[in-house]
Amino acid sequence: MKAIGVDLGGTNIKAAVVDDKQGIVEQVTTPTRASLGKDFLLDRIAETVTGLVKNHEIIGIGLGLPGMVSKDQTTVKNPPNLPGWKEVNAAEEISTRTNLPCKVENDANIAALGSLHFGVGQQFESFIMITLGTGVGGGIIYDRKLFKGTQGMAGELGHVIIDYHGPLSNSVTRGTVEAYLGQRFLSRFASDLISQNPSNPLYEQFADNFDELEPLDLTNAANEGNDLAIEILAKSGQRLGYAIINYVHMMDIRKFVVGGGVAKAGDLLFEPAREIIDKHMMEPFKEGFELVYEDLGNESALLGASGLAFDSFS
Amino acid sequence: MKAIGVDLGGTNIKAAVVDDKQGIVEQVTTPTRASLGKDFLLDRIAETVTGLVKNHEIIGIGLGLPGMVSKDQTTVKNPPNLPGWKEVNAAEEISTRTNLPCKVENDANIAALGSLHFGVGQQFESFIMITLGTGVGGGIIYDRKLFKGTQGMAGELGHVIIDYHGPLSNSVTRGTVEAYLGQRFLSRFASDLISQNPSNPLYEQFADNFDELEPLDLTNAANEGNDLAIEILAKSGQRLGYAIINYVHMMDIRKFVVGGGVAKAGDLLFEPAREIIDKHMMEPFKEGFELVYEDLGNESALLGASGLAFDSFS
Repeated sequence: MKAIGVDLGGTNIKAAVVDDKQGIVEQVTTPTRASLGKDFLLDRIAETVTGLVKNHEIIGIGLGLPGMVSKDQTTVKNPPNLPGWKEVNAAEEISTRTNLPCKVENDANIAALGSLHFGVGQQFESFIMITLGTGVGGGIIYDRKLFKGTQGMAGELGHVIIDYHGPLSNSVTRGTVEAYLGQRFLSRFASDLISQNPSNPLYEQFADNFDELEPLDLTNAANEGNDLAIEILAKSGQRLGYAIINYVHMMDIRKFVVGGGVAKAGDLLFEPAREIIDKHMMEPFKEGFELVYEDLGNESALLGASGLAFDSFS
Repeated sequence: MKAIGVDLGGTNIKAAVVDDKQGIVEQVTTPTRASLGKDFLLDRIAETVTGLVKNHEIIGIGLGLPGMVSKDQTTVKNPPNLPGWKEVNAAEEISTRTNLPCKVENDANIAALGSLHFGVGQQFESFIMITLGTGVGGGIIYDRKLFKGTQGMAGELGHVIIDYHGPLSNSVTRGTVEAYLGQRFLSRFASDLISQNPSNPLYEQFADNFDELEPLDLTNAANEGNDLAIEILAKSGQRLGYAIINYVHMMDIRKFVVGGGVAKAGDLLFEPAREIIDKHMMEPFKEGFELVYEDLGNESALLGASGLAFDSFS
C-alpha cells in the first residue's frame, strides 16, 4: 500500500511516495517560494505530487505543515511563514488539483504519526511524542489514533506551565516547558550560566559570540566531561521531567517518545528527567512508564505525513 | 429508566433509586462500619441495594467510592478509609450478591458524571470537572464519555504542577494545584497571611485557633468586604487559572465545571481565574471557553453513580 507524504516547510516542499512496509520509495524536493502567494504554492504542491503519482498506485495524500489544523484535518489557520494563508482548506485545494483524497496535519502531530507508523511508536498503543526543536511541540497518540481534543488543537505540550513565575516563551504563557527547553531559550539559559563561569572552556569558546551557542555545543562539551554543560543539560532534563509528570497525571498515557534537535543530548537530558519522574510522579502511574529517544532523521516528516494518509484512506 | 446509585463514603453508605429524567426517587442511608471488614461491607451494600430494588425496574448499579479504579470500571485499588480492600473487584462482588450488573468509579469521576447527567454538564459534549474539596479532584468528559487514559487513572488534575518549586501537597509532587487549593492548604496559606496582618478582623477571630479557619470563613469575610480575604481568594483563583491553562493546552477541552466546598467562593475565585486565563492562555483556545459553577448538593454522588449505570447498561 502506498501513499504520498508531503512536508511543506518554509524553505522547501518535500514530497515522497511511501510504502507502508518499505518506507520511502521515491522522493522529490522543490523550493517553497511562499512569497509568490497561496495559489502559486498550492499549484506547486499539486504539480510535485502529480509528478510522483504516475508510476504508483496511491491511496491518498498526507500533508504536514506548520500552524493549527482543524479537527477534521482539512483546514489550517494562520500558518507561520506562509503569507496570505489566513484560513485555507488545504486538503480540498490539493484534492481538487490532484484527484486524490488529502488530509493535512501540523508538524508536531505529523512527527507523532511518523513514530507511530515507522518509528519506536510502532510498539505502543498510546504514547506522547515530544519534539524538542526550535519550539517544543507535541502529539498525542491514544489507541493508535491522534488525540485532537474538541477543536483539533490538543497537544500544545510546549505551552504547559511548570512554573507560573517563570520566564516568557514565544507565547503569552510563563514558565512553560518551551520557555526552558526551546532551542533559543535553552541557549540563553546556558549563556547566562557560562558567562558567570569564566574559567569554563565554554566561556572562552563563546564569550564573544553567545548568539552562536547551540544545544549541540552543550552536548558535545558534556560528552567531553564539561561539568557546567552537564549541569545545564541536567537542569533542563529535570524541567522536562516535571512537564512529563503533568502529561501523565492528566491523561494517564505512560509512554513517551522524544525527538528533535535538542533531544540529541540523549541521556544527558533523559536521565535527569527520569530521576525527577521517579521522585515526583504518583506511584500508581509508574508501572509501565517509558521514556525513549526517537530519530527518524530528515525523513521523519515525510513518513509521518504518509502515516496520516494511511490512517485516513486505507 | 431507573438505576441504582451508591455512594460509599467513610461514614455512610448512601443508595438511591434514580430515574434518568426525574432524578432521585427513593433513598436510604446506612452506616459504613468499614472496620468490620470487606465482606461485611459488601454484604451491607448488597442488602441496601436489594431493599431498594424490589419496587422498581432497575437496569443496573453504579457505585462511587474513593481510590483508583481500573479502566473497565470493576476493580478498586487501595481505597483510603476501607481497611482490607487492597484490590477488590467490587463490581463483580456486588453483581453476584444482587443479580444486577454493576460498575464502579472513583468519587472525582462520579462528580463529573453527575454533572453530565443531571447538572450544568448536560449542555456540554466535552468538559472537565474540577472538584475543590479536601483535595482537588478531576474528571474528564470527552464526547459525553469519561476519559480514563490507558490504565483508567486519567484526570488526576489536583496533581498537575503549576510551580515545581512550590509547596508539597498530600502527594509526592510539589507545587500542584491541590497544594494551593486543597482545603487544608488554602487554610494554611490564609493563616500565614492573616498572622502577618494583626489589624485585620480575621486575625482577632482566628489568631488563637488557626486550625479552625476554613475556606468558607474567607468567603464570608470577603463578602463582607474584608480586603485580605478577597486577596487570598483572588491569589488562589489565579492559581486555579494557571492549572486550567495547562488542562486546555494539553487536551483542548474548553468547558470547565467547578464544584466542591471551596468552589462556594464563586466569583471571588473564578473572576481572578478568568483574568489569568484571558492573559496567559493561547489565543486560539479562547473561543468557546467557559468556566461555570456546579452545585448538585449532597445528592451529587448518588446522581453521578446512577449516571455511571445509565452509561454502562442502557
